Parts: sequence; C-alpha cells; structure tokens
Amino acid sequence: MDVISNFSKNAENAIEEETATAERLEREGRKLTRLNIGDPAVFFPTPKYLTEAYAKALAQGKTHYVNPRGILQLREAVSARYKRHYKVDISASDGIFITNGVSEAIMSLNIMLVNPGEMGILFTPYYAICKSSLGLAGGDPLLMPYNEEKGWELDTEELEAKISAGRKEGKRIKYMMVTNPSNPTGMVLDRKTLERLVEVAKNNDIIIISDEIYDEIIYAGVKFTSMCQVAKGVPHIILNGASKDLDATGFRIGFTLIPENDRASEAMRLKFEELLGMRLCANTPAQYAIADGINNVDENKKEVKELVAAIEERSRFATKLINESRYMHVVPPRGAYYIFPKLDMKMLNLKNDREFVHTLLLEEGVLLTRGSGFGCHDHVRLVALPPKEILELAIEKINAFCKRHSR
Amino acid sequence: MDVISNFSKNAENAIEEETATAERLEREGRKLTRLNIGDPAVFFPTPKYLTEAYAKALAQGKTHYVNPRGILQLREAVSARYKRHYKVDISASDGIFITNGVSEAIMSLNIMLVNPGEMGILFTPYYAICKSSLGLAGGDPLLMPYNEEKGWELDTEELEAKISAGRKEGKRIKYMMVTNPSNPTGMVLDRKTLERLVEVAKNNDIIIISDEIYDEIIYAGVKFTSMCQVAKGVPHIILNGASKDLDATGFRIGFTLIPENDRASEAMRLKFEELLGMRLCANTPAQYAIADGINNVDENKKEVKELVAAIEERSRFATKLINESRYMHVVPPRGAYYIFPKLDMKMLNLKNDREFVHTLLLEEGVLLTRGSGFGCHDHVRLVALPPKEILELAIEKINAFCKRHSR
Repeated sequence: MDVISNFSKNAENAIEEETATAERLEREGRKLTRLNIGDPAVFFPTPKYLTEAYAKALAQGKTHYVNPRGILQLREAVSARYKRHYKVDISASDGIFITNGVSEAIMSLNIMLVNPGEMGILFTPYYAICKSSLGLAGGDPLLMPYNEEKGWELDTEELEAKISAGRKEGKRIKYMMVTNPSNPTGMVLDRKTLERLVEVAKNNDIIIISDEIYDEIIYAGVKFTSMCQVAKGVPHIILNGASKDLDATGFRIGFTLIPENDRASEAMRLKFEELLGMRLCANTPAQYAIADGINNVDENKKEVKELVAAIEERSRFATKLINESRYMHVVPPRGAYYIFPKLDMKMLNLKNDREFVHTLLLEEGVLLTRGSGFGCHDHVRLVALPPKEILELAIEKINAFCKRHSR
Repeated sequence: MDVISNFSKNAENAIEEETATAERLEREGRKLTRLNIGDPAVFFPTPKYLTEAYAKALAQGKTHYVNPRGILQLREAVSARYKRHYKVDISASDGIFITNGVSEAIMSLNIMLVNPGEMGILFTPYYAICKSSLGLAGGDPLLMPYNEEKGWELDTEELEAKISAGRKEGKRIKYMMVTNPSNPTGMVLDRKTLERLVEVAKNNDIIIISDEIYDEIIYAGVKFTSMCQVAKGVPHIILNGASKDLDATGFRIGFTLIPENDRASEAMRLKFEELLGMRLCANTPAQYAIADGINNVDENKKEVKELVAAIEERSRFATKLINESRYMHVVPPRGAYYIFPKLDMKMLNLKNDREFVHTLLLEEGVLLTRGSGFGCHDHVRLVALPPKEILELAIEKINAFCKRHSR
C-alpha cells in the first residue's frame, strides 16, 4: 500500500531541494558558493549581545520546558517592540505566541484554518513554503500574481475579480497571505496597497496573514508599513521573528501576533495556543536570549543599522551586475536580501529554471533557488548576503554558464 | 464563517490544559505543586557537560541554519549511541533525523502517513499528543487497551482480532504506535511482546512507530529492549531525544530513526526529509551541544546513572504512598517517572477525572494531569520527579481532597 499520505505529497521547499547534491559535491572536494538560503548569520556573525544573553540563560539553568505560548518576558519584549516601532498595543498575555521559527507558525496556521478543498490566497511569487504548507492541510492556493513589469505592483481590482470568481465556483477562501518585504523579490508594499488589501479582506470575510520577518531590513528612502498599523478591526495575524532582523537564524525563534479581539481572532488565539501546547515549547534559553536582545534597544538599533547598511550595499552591487547581464533582468529590491531576476529563457538552451539551477550547481558550483519554487517560472533567486567579491565572482560564473548554454 | 478547521478541533494536550489556570493562581500569590509536566530539568539541573558544550557552540558562532535533517555530527553521535546500546547499525547519512523535540516528529509523521479517515493503532493509555496529532491529520485511532489488572499487559491476540475487524469494515490501518517505556504508566514492554507486535505488524502491513524517549530511565532489575532490536525486516520508526535521558528538555532536540531499507522505509525517509526541509532546521547550538554530550560517553553514563537512581527512589516512595491511600491504586511503574493511579470514583463526589484535576488544583494547589487525556478515564497522572517531601505533601493533599469529596 502507498505509505505516504496524499496531502504530504505537496511537501517541498525549493530552497532546500539541492542540499543533498551540494553536500555530495562538497564531500567530493568541490568548493561551492551557496546563494540559496537567506542566512545572515553565515556572513554577519550573530551579535555578541545576543550570544552573551544566550550563554547567561544557560548558566542560569534556563533549560527546562516553559509555557507553550513562550516565556512572558519575550512576549512582553515583542509587545514593547511593536509599541515602539508601530505604535500599536498588542497584549503580551493573549495576543503573542513564540514558535520554532516562522515556518512552524505557517504550518500550524494552515492546519488551524484550512479544511481540505478550501483556499488561501497567495501572491506570486510567494515565499516557497506558503504553498506547500497550505497543501499539507489539503488546501488549494488561489494565486494572484504581482505585476513584474510594473515593479511587482499589486492590482487589487484583479484580486477582487479573482475572489468573486472563486466564490461563484463555490470555493471557500480562508485567508490571504502576504510576505512583506517580499521573499523572493525584495519588494515592499506601500501603505495604500495594504489599505486596499484590508478592504478586500473585510469585504470578503478573509483573514489576513502578513509575514513581516524582514521589517527592519528596508533600504534607504523606502518606508515600511506593518499590516498591524492598517488592519484595525479586521482579523489578522502578523508573523515575525529573531532570524533576520536580529541575525539569529539558528536560534529558531518566531513570533506570531494575533492582535484583534473579534470573535474570529479570539477563536484563533485559543486554538493556536492548543496547537502550540501539543509540542510543549520552543527552545528555552534562546527565548531568554531574544527577550534580552529586544529589550537591549540601543545595542539592537546599532547592530540592525550596521547590518542593513552592509546588506543594502551588497544587494545594490549585485543588482547592478545582474542588470548588466544579457541573460537576465531584475526589478531592484527595496528591502530584505534577495534578488529575483527573470532569466531570458529564449536565449538559453535549458528546459526551465529547475534545470538551470541544477546544472549551474553541477557545472559552476553556484547554488541558487529556482523561481518556480516561489510560483514564478523562468526566474532564480540569489541571496545577496556574501561580500561583493563573492557575489561578483558568482555572477560572472552565472554569465559564463549562460553563455555556454546559449542557443 | 467558522474560522477553525475541522481537523484542528482535535488539537489538545491534557498535560497543558490547566496551565493558564495555574498561572493565574500563581499571579494571585498561590504556591502550587506542579506534578503535571515530566520535566526533569526543573528538579535535576541539566548537567554541566551539556550546558558547557552548548555555550561553546555559541562562542564558536554556531548560530546559523544547518541541514534540515540535523548536523552530521549529531546524527553520527546518535548512530554510535544505538550501536553502543543496542548493537544496531543505523546510517547517520540516511536513517537519522533531528527534530524540534519528539512532538514535532509525532505531528509530522502523522501528516506524512495518514490520509483523512485512515487509522493509527494507539494502545491505551497512550501518550496524550499521539491521539491529537493523529486527529490533526484527519485520522482516527484504533484503540487497543493495555490490561491494567494484569499489570498493563498487552493481549496481542485481542489486537489481531481488532485489526481483522477493522479491516473487514474497510478501514486502512497505517501504523501502530507504542510509547515504551510508557508515558503515563511507566510500564516496560518485554521482548516477547515486542516480537509479537512485530509479527502482527508484518502480517498486516502496518508501520511500527516506537517512542523510546525514556529508554535509559529503567528501574533496577528491569530489562529494556528497543524496537530496533526486534523489528529487523519490518518498516519501523524509532523516536528518541535529548529531553529525558539527557535531562535537557528546554533544548528541544528529538531524534527520528528510520533504520530499514525496504521500499516503505525509503519512501518515508525521502518524504520526512522534505517535510523537515520546510521548517529549515532545529535549534543549531543545541544540536552541537547534544552531539558533544552523547559522545562524552563516560560523563553521560555517570549522569544518567545518578539521575535514574534518584528518580527510581522518588517514584517507589510515591507509589507506596499512593497504594496506602483508600482512594486510589496503582500498578508500580518499571521505568520513566510517571505514576498513573486509578481513582476509586465510586467513593468520590466528583463527576470525572477532569473535574478531579481542576478542583484539586483550585482547592489544594496540586496540579496533575487527567487520565482521560491519555485515553484512560478515572485515572490521574503524577510526575514523580520532585523531592520526597514534596511528593509526600502533595499525596497528603490529594488524600485530604478525596476525603473531603467522598460520598
């Protein structure tokens, strides 16, 4: 009999799918340039104020289980952060939950909200695991593309039309999920677009989920608005965490915020706590470390500022090089640290972006992620975190690879 | 519309369900005795060789993402441990996976294996989240009781009859799941029973899942056999981790072993890796700490020996006191650190074990877990980890409570 369940056939994460091949090549002595995973801690050591707070927690014996929703100190620190940054009040006792990274939250929220056959709205390109997590719950995506020609703009009227069409077919649309700043495009949604999304959600009884884990990695001159600032009165969930802004990926600490007090939000808070209770808690000393770190406002501000300045420089540098290439073109990102060029597949003798990524890895030792893993064919995602000389060399190799495989 | 999905209505963990009430009482100044969560690290500080290895990993900058299946060092350490303890060869590169505690594994395995309407066999009393995790995947339990009168013995002929009956009704039975040593009863399955289970599984094409997280917490004179020693040739999954034997609950490090190379096991290995890839990885520095800790064989052996001796003494002490009570009776445990007495409900003016636990908490400040949360009504679970004087006082309070509520 077939051992694997039907829903879990949806499990995939394009970001990790070449990991086994990459490790094999490294065992064979190949030196690789890994531009597939957005892991700042590889290139910018996690700041000392965080690792020292972590070691302190260990020395103090913070190694036992804690409340499934997370330690109160961390929930209070997150609440204070949202007050500081966005002037919103989110209850530390009821509205904030600590997860094993944002990934656990995305999977649990899908299980919590979606019955088999129901839909979640994803905006393409979406963050890779949003679609597979929805599929694990037996749900189907309602895909709404950003417009690449217009700088990844979102047409909210087209969105409304799609929702109406879906509903006419009898589909139940449970949520819409945005990743803002976007992974993989680095686009940042403006306040007006967010307000329109809230309107659409309200009119159609759709829950908003907004993954804002890159909310401090915003380039000069760009203004970030959090969904929690504009979604008052509409059930919404904000995802964030320590991995990106705080440069502490390996700590695996995510935050889930359910700020409102309406009936749907209350039901979600209760159920989410029960779901988290099933896995007892997230890593304990890491929770204490992140609580200390967020409360260390000055140190935190300084470190984030330096990190973002370095990332922006590397990202702009790589974007420029990519746009000088004959084989690809990219809308310049405005935040996060991904670059998501469109490949000119007509010029290339390769079947698709999956083959592009796999062959590039084998031939040049450069590891990217295929765009189709984010719902966007003929694209690749690069991580712009390494030093410029590494990015430059990698892009040279990509160009040489394209030339070799050009028609 | 109903925001919460139908499957997630199954989410619950009886162990955590009084946490909010307990925290409220503590905020009001009440002093509680918490005997609900099996957390050794609260009473026996996590050994220094582990916390120091953890701090070392942090100092060395091990704070980035790692391979979703876990760092190779840890998988190799787990493989060597199984070789040492059970003389089995399990491939570190293919057969071992590191999870966020065993809970994550249980949930992911259910999603991986179970289609809505399919069944998993659980032996009552089962570990609480086994049933709710199965329910999250839309599956149904086939419940097979241990025989309490016969010291929680398992009647494998009755099991076969139940399986036959289920199959005649057209049910697809995907797996059987044992927790051995048992949480909540502390029973240890003997080799002969395990061999019979393997036979039944083989004859009926059923995957075996064996949660053995208490495999070193075995009382004097009792022999533990791991399922991996007797299930050769039959697809099986072993769960274990750092929380209990290593006394490092808050590290949240679990191990999943899929030792065999048959077609079903291969499919499970591949899919499980894909599922883990969706959440990137378990806490990184904790993985390095546990790898170091397992490899530190002498220190590990010494610490485990001391821990088990202390636990056994406390457990035997509490068991004796309970069996002197007029209101409850318990089969003496043979491992782990739980005591699972049957309440004599006929003598009590309380509706059920849920009311018993809730009212006991409110009136006496003693927090237990209700037996029905493990599929066994009229029982409660106590954790025998605190010092004897605390256990003694708690049992006195339980007796006084029973007397006050006797008919």
